Amino acid sequence: MSVNIYDDINRLEGTLRQTTEFTALQHAVDAVKSDEEALALFKSFRDLQMKLQDKQMKGEEISGEELEYFQKTAQLAQGNEKIEKMLHAEMALSGLIEEVNRVLMKPVQAIYEGI
Amino acid sequence: MSVNIYDDINRLEGTLRQTTEFTALQHAVDAVKSDEEALALFKSFRDLQMKLQDKQMKGEEISGEELEYFQKTAQLAQGNEKIEKMLHAEMALSGLIEEVNRVLMKPVQAIYEGI
Ligand SMILES: [Ca+2]
Ligand SMILES: [Ca+2]
Repeated sequence: MSVNIYDDINRLEGTLRQTTEFTALQHAVDAVKSDEEALALFKSFRDLQMKLQDKQMKGEEISGEELEYFQKTAQLAQGNEKIEKMLHAEMALSGLIEEVNRVLMKPVQAIYEGI
Repeated sequence: MSVNIYDDINRLEGTLRQTTEFTALQHAVDAVKSDEEALALFKSFRDLQMKLQDKQMKGEEISGEELEYFQKTAQLAQGNEKIEKMLHAEMALSGLIEEVNRVLMKPVQAIYEGI
């Protein structure tokens, strides 16, 4: 390392927490947490998603019934205003973090230029 | 956004370029570039890797012969001192960029706590 990159990483993290993208996600998650129906829907959706991903990673078969049930749950979750808002806030914040990675990877990719 | 996160991202990028991990990769890549044998080996390895990944993504079959040829090329490449050094330098720099992502994702994950 030698230069202290951690100062810059920590400064960036502090600024990230102040962005409108970050605070919007905080508010959107709080809105879901405090709405019984939205919270139950979101939990069902996330638990099913994790269960299916787990099966997929283990190479286990996912039945048509399971997939159908998951799709219905996903549809219900996405149709909920508060969950929808939260998913959009997640995407916006992800976009910002992807931007960090794009900026950091640019000089790394440049190293390989001409190879 | 509202706060100017780009200043912090750009400062971090500037510091990243000064880390020993970054300059070590620059030197390791330069060493491969200026060694005819290492460069040819690395290019064969990378081109084959991209070709096979492309086939895999398209769902095309990869023959046993192709796989065997790839493995031999990979073995030869990794056995080359200069390429080996470059691959290690890549991993060290990747570790640093993963660390940035870990630090940034920590407050994001905290938002979901208790859900
Ligand atoms: Ca809606
Ligand atoms: Ca060796």
